[in-house]
Amino acid sequence: MLDERILKEVTVKTSSKIVLLVMDGLGGIPVDGRTELEAAHTPNLDRLASEGICGLTDPVYPGITPGSGPGHLALFGYDPLRYEIGRGVLEALGIGMELGPGEVVARANFATLDEGGRVVDRRAGRIPTEENKALCGKLQAAIREVEGVKVEIRPGREHRFVVKFTGEGLDSRISDTDPQKEGVPPRRPEPLAPEAERTSRIVETFLRQAFEVLKGEKPANGVLMRGFSQLPHLPTLGELYKLTPACIASYPMYRGLAKLVGMEVLETGETVAEEFTTLKEHFADFDFFYLHVKKTDSRGEDGDFAGKVEVIEEVDRHIPLLLELAPEVIVVTADHSTPAALKGHSWHPNPFLLRSPYERRDDVDRFTEMACARGGLGRFRAQEAMTLMLAAALKMKKFGA
Amino acid sequence: MLDERILKEVTVKTSSKIVLLVMDGLGGIPVDGRTELEAAHTPNLDRLASEGICGLTDPVYPGITPGSGPGHLALFGYDPLRYEIGRGVLEALGIGMELGPGEVVARANFATLDEGGRVVDRRAGRIPTEENKALCGKLQAAIREVEGVKVEIRPGREHRFVVKFTGEGLDSRISDTDPQKEGVPPRRPEPLAPEAERTSRIVETFLRQAFEVLKGEKPANGVLMRGFSQLPHLPTLGELYKLTPACIASYPMYRGLAKLVGMEVLETGETVAEEFTTLKEHFADFDFFYLHVKKTDSRGEDGDFAGKVEVIEEVDRHIPLLLELAPEVIVVTADHSTPAALKGHSWHPNPFLLRSPYERRDDVDRFTEMACARGGLGRFRAQEAMTLMLAAALKMKKFGA
Repeated sequence: MLDERILKEVTVKTSSKIVLLVMDGLGGIPVDGRTELEAAHTPNLDRLASEGICGLTDPVYPGITPGSGPGHLALFGYDPLRYEIGRGVLEALGIGMELGPGEVVARANFATLDEGGRVVDRRAGRIPTEENKALCGKLQAAIREVEGVKVEIRPGREHRFVVKFTGEGLDSRISDTDPQKEGVPPRRPEPLAPEAERTSRIVETFLRQAFEVLKGEKPANGVLMRGFSQLPHLPTLGELYKLTPACIASYPMYRGLAKLVGMEVLETGETVAEEFTTLKEHFADFDFFYLHVKKTDSRGEDGDFAGKVEVIEEVDRHIPLLLELAPEVIVVTADHSTPAALKGHSWHPNPFLLRSPYERRDDVDRFTEMACARGGLGRFRAQEAMTLMLAAALKMKKFGA
Repeated sequence: MLDERILKEVTVKTSSKIVLLVMDGLGGIPVDGRTELEAAHTPNLDRLASEGICGLTDPVYPGITPGSGPGHLALFGYDPLRYEIGRGVLEALGIGMELGPGEVVARANFATLDEGGRVVDRRAGRIPTEENKALCGKLQAAIREVEGVKVEIRPGREHRFVVKFTGEGLDSRISDTDPQKEGVPPRRPEPLAPEAERTSRIVETFLRQAFEVLKGEKPANGVLMRGFSQLPHLPTLGELYKLTPACIASYPMYRGLAKLVGMEVLETGETVAEEFTTLKEHFADFDFFYLHVKKTDSRGEDGDFAGKVEVIEEVDRHIPLLLELAPEVIVVTADHSTPAALKGHSWHPNPFLLRSPYERRDDVDRFTEMACARGGLGRFRAQEAMTLMLAAALKMKKFGA
C-alpha cells in the first residue's frame, strides 16, 4: 500500500458515493466447462460490466490462498502482509465478541485427555454446540478473573470457544498449548517475549483452574488454546482516505473486520434483500458502503455448485436497486475465490468490476472470470483497488507538481 | 526501481539508439464513446503499434494522479515515491531558472495585506505579468544578499515568482509562510529541522526587507512563500545505464527535469516539426533521446477534445521522419493522462508502445488506450519502462550466472 502520509495528502472529502459489493468467494473454476459465474444468468451484473471496466485482483500474492482477514484487508486498501490479524482475534470477531485495545484473545477447543493427561481427542468428539454452551457457562461461573485480569469465555460451534483476557499490560506473544497431535499432553503457554511473561502466567493459572472445573466431564475434560492475539492497530478509512464508511454484513466476522478499519456497522437482516434495503435506508448518511454477501462463499465451501449459482443470480436481481441509488462508483468483486469444485478458499484471482462516469470503458460485456481477465484494468493487487475506487469517485488530488 | 548496483552491473554501452517520445497527458476517457486517441486518425502510430508490442503503465500507483515531476521521473526509471521533487524546484525549472546543488528555492506570490498586516488577497488580484516583472526588478535591485547568502528573484506569470538562495550550509526544511487563507497575517518561516535554523532566519530577514521595499505598492504590498526545496540527488542516466542521453523539449520544466537526470538539453523550437528536426540534426551524437510534446497535455487541460486530437494527428505525421532515422528502439507513451473531459491530469494508465527488432509482437494494430490494455506487455509500472527499453536495445547483460 502507499505510504500513509501520501494517502492523507492526496485524498479529499467530497459528497460522491462509493458502493463496494463483495460477493464472498465469488470466483470459481470450471465444472463441466463452466464456472459458477459462467453458469449463472446475470443480466444486471453483465450490464454493469459492459458499462464499466473490469480486471482481476490478487488479494495477497499470486498463488496464495487468502483467509477472510487478509482478503478483506486487501480490499480495504491495507497490505495484508503488513497487517496480520491473529486467529484469536478473527475467531472472536466471528462470534461477535467485542474487542478493545490491549485485550488478549485466543481460540480454544474442548478436548479429551486420558488419565495420564495426554490428549486423546483434540476436539472432544466434536461435542454438540449445546453442550459447549453449558460447559462455557460452567467455566465462566467458576472463573471470573485471574490476578485481577478479567476472563471472558464465549462459546462458538461444536467444540470451539473463545477466551478473552482484559487488564493492564497484557501481551499476546504466547505459544499455543494445542500440541496439534494426539498422544502427548497439552503444551505449556510459553512467553515468546519477555513482556509476555506475566500474561503467560495468567493463562497458565486460567488453564489449571479450567482443568479443575472440567475434571470428571466426559468427553470434554480438557482445554487447548491457540492463536493468542490482540487487535492490530490499523489506521482507519477515515484517517487514511477521509471517508465516512458504513458496513452492511449479516455475519459477525465481517462486521468485526469492518469495525477494525473504522466503519460504522449498520443493523441489517440475514438475506440479500434485507442487506440492499439497509443500503437504501442509509444511503444519504455515508460516502462509502461495504456490502457483504456471505452465501456465495458458503455454497462454495459446501461444494454446492448449483447453490452458488443461485446465490449469484439472487444478488444479480438486486442490482437494479443499486442503480436506482446512483452512486458515482460501483465496484463488484470478492475477497477471495471459493470454487465449489475445491470446497474451500482458493488462490484464483477475483473478478473485479468498476463502473464510474470518470473511468474508461472496456469491451467486456459479461461478468465472468475470463471476461475480466481480458478487461481494461488488467490484473492487479487487491490492495490497489481502494485508490482506484477513490480516484473514480474524484476523491483524490494530484501527487507532486 | 532496481537496485543501483544491479543496474550498473548489467547495463552495457552500445551504439544502439533509443527514442522515447513522450506525448504529455496523452491518455483520455471517452467523450461520446471515444477517447482522443480513438477519435484521432493515426496511421503511422498504428503502424508502430502493429510492428511493436503494447501495454499500459501506471506512473506512481493505480488510482494516483501524477504531477509532471513524478510522471517523468517514473518514465526515466526512478521510483517517484522515493525521489520527490519539491514545488519550489519544479517552479524554478518551469521558468528556466538554473539550479545547483545546495541552493534553496521557493515559489512566491505577490499578495495584498491590510493595515494590520493581514492577508486580504493571496494573489494581489492576479497582477499582470508586466507588473510582476517590474516588482521583481525592484526587489532584486534592493536585495542582492542576506548574511552573505546570494538572493535571486525571477518573475513567473501573473502574481507568481521564484526566489533562490545560494550559499554554504543552506537547508530547505522550512515551513510555508503562505497561510493558505485570507484574514490572517503571513506565517513565519519556521525551521522544520535544527539544521534549517540559519536558513529560516535568512528567509525571515529577506521577507522583512521585501515588505519594506513593497510598502506603498498597491495591490502587491506583500510576499507569501511556499515549497522551500532543494535539488534532490538523483543518480544520472549515465551513471545508472551508461547512456549518453539528450532532451528535446520546448517547455522549460521538462528541460529542467531532463537536466536533473543528467541529459544534455538540446536547443530546439516551439513546434513539433522543429523538435523532430532537432532530433534528426543530433541523431548521431547520443544514444538516448527524450522527445517531449507538450500540447497534448495543454489541450487536455483546456478541455479541448478536438484540439488534443489535432495535436495527436500532428505528431503522427512526423513518425515517418523518426522511422527514417531507424533507431533500434522506439517508445511512444505519456507521463500521465490528461482527459479533455476532466480538464486536468488523471490517474488513468498510459498507453505504451515499444518497437524493436528484438521484441515480441502482439496483435495490437491501433494505438489506443483499450488496444494497449490488451497488448502483450500488459499493465505495469512506468518505472519499469526504462529497463524494458534498454533490453530491447540490447543494452543489458545477463543478471546472475
